[in-house]
Amino acid sequence: MNYLQKPQQIEQNSFAIIGDIIASELPDYRFVDEMQEAVIKRVIHTTADFDWLDILWFSPGVLARVTEALSRGCTLYTDTTMAQSGINKALLHQMGCECRCYISDPRVVAMAKAQGITRSMAAVDVALAEKGDKIFVFGNAPTALFRLLERQASPLAVVGVPVGFVGAAESKAALMQSELPCIAAAGRKGGSNIAAAIINAILYRLREAP
Amino acid sequence: MNYLQKPQQIEQNSFAIIGDIIASELPDYRFVDEMQEAVIKRVIHTTADFDWLDILWFSPGVLARVTEALSRGCTLYTDTTMAQSGINKALLHQMGCECRCYISDPRVVAMAKAQGITRSMAAVDVALAEKGDKIFVFGNAPTALFRLLERQASPLAVVGVPVGFVGAAESKAALMQSELPCIAAAGRKGGSNIAAAIINAILYRLREAP
Repeated sequence: MNYLQKPQQIEQNSFAIIGDIIASELPDYRFVDEMQEAVIKRVIHTTADFDWLDILWFSPGVLARVTEALSRGCTLYTDTTMAQSGINKALLHQMGCECRCYISDPRVVAMAKAQGITRSMAAVDVALAEKGDKIFVFGNAPTALFRLLERQASPLAVVGVPVGFVGAAESKAALMQSELPCIAAAGRKGGSNIAAAIINAILYRLREAP
Repeated sequence: MNYLQKPQQIEQNSFAIIGDIIASELPDYRFVDEMQEAVIKRVIHTTADFDWLDILWFSPGVLARVTEALSRGCTLYTDTTMAQSGINKALLHQMGCECRCYISDPRVVAMAKAQGITRSMAAVDVALAEKGDKIFVFGNAPTALFRLLERQASPLAVVGVPVGFVGAAESKAALMQSELPCIAAAGRKGGSNIAAAIINAILYRLREAP
């Protein structure tokens, strides 16, 4: 069989095709800046879904803030091991950052059981008790996002893209209406893969132009 | 804040909403059987994308075959740690199954470098050298799927849902045209989350009605 086998070339070609499709089908579409373009295009690359041109929302200055935090060193807290697994950890560690997911942490399991809350909520409480600069990265659990908001916490930023039919859209709307610096998705769409893609897009831009 | 905090109820409500949306917007849509319905609805649950009603393709008898293999014990090979991470391993292990991902295995890294192929391709070669009943679960790498097809291997089944713009649609079309028992996505859409959701849907059905 004849097929492209060079990962870097596959990726370059993919982004060129994404750009071509946007240019031909949505000639009036404009990205705000190169970083926002990199993030949105990587989410499209991850999903093959061009809805992301319209549904991904950025609070003012959030990308500069996340970029600065990642380049300085901070801790990411994900709601699922899948999001954690999708984030480029080699690059993250090079930048002096860490990624933690407490969803299966024994403290979280015990706390969730004792309080009758979701493990996602308990994981937020455990994370908030830790010191250091935090970015929360949620691709799955609306309850994690609701918990963070009701705790009135002040993380550096939140990537809030839980997917689903019960609470997901509401949790993201609440995030967008909050004062928190955030990247969020309008409506039902989202996912752990998208949460990871958003972080990776920023990491890759940082690698290219530190 | 007032929001639903019981995971089981959130999931039940989600599936009820998905059913209602299909019934109201696509009243003529018919699932083939309960297992196919469970798989498609779980993919929609994972993505909030109703395109999956039309693009997920099942070769004849594949669901019975995968169900039987999972209940008897087999080995799943994923192309990404993200797909591996998304599969319910507790349930998988209860059924006597295993899930392996060789993408970062030192043998794979060395083989890919020596042969100038992708690590995804090398991981397929390493997996094929192992004994036992295999199901390949690909959500990301068209090159993994192409490799499997060019090796003319005979796994029990293939979940083939690589996402993307270069080779993804072609690799899935080749899979669907092959003799391999498979679940595949038409077009560009797919992803590690979808690959995991397909396996989980079958695992959950098996748990309910073993």
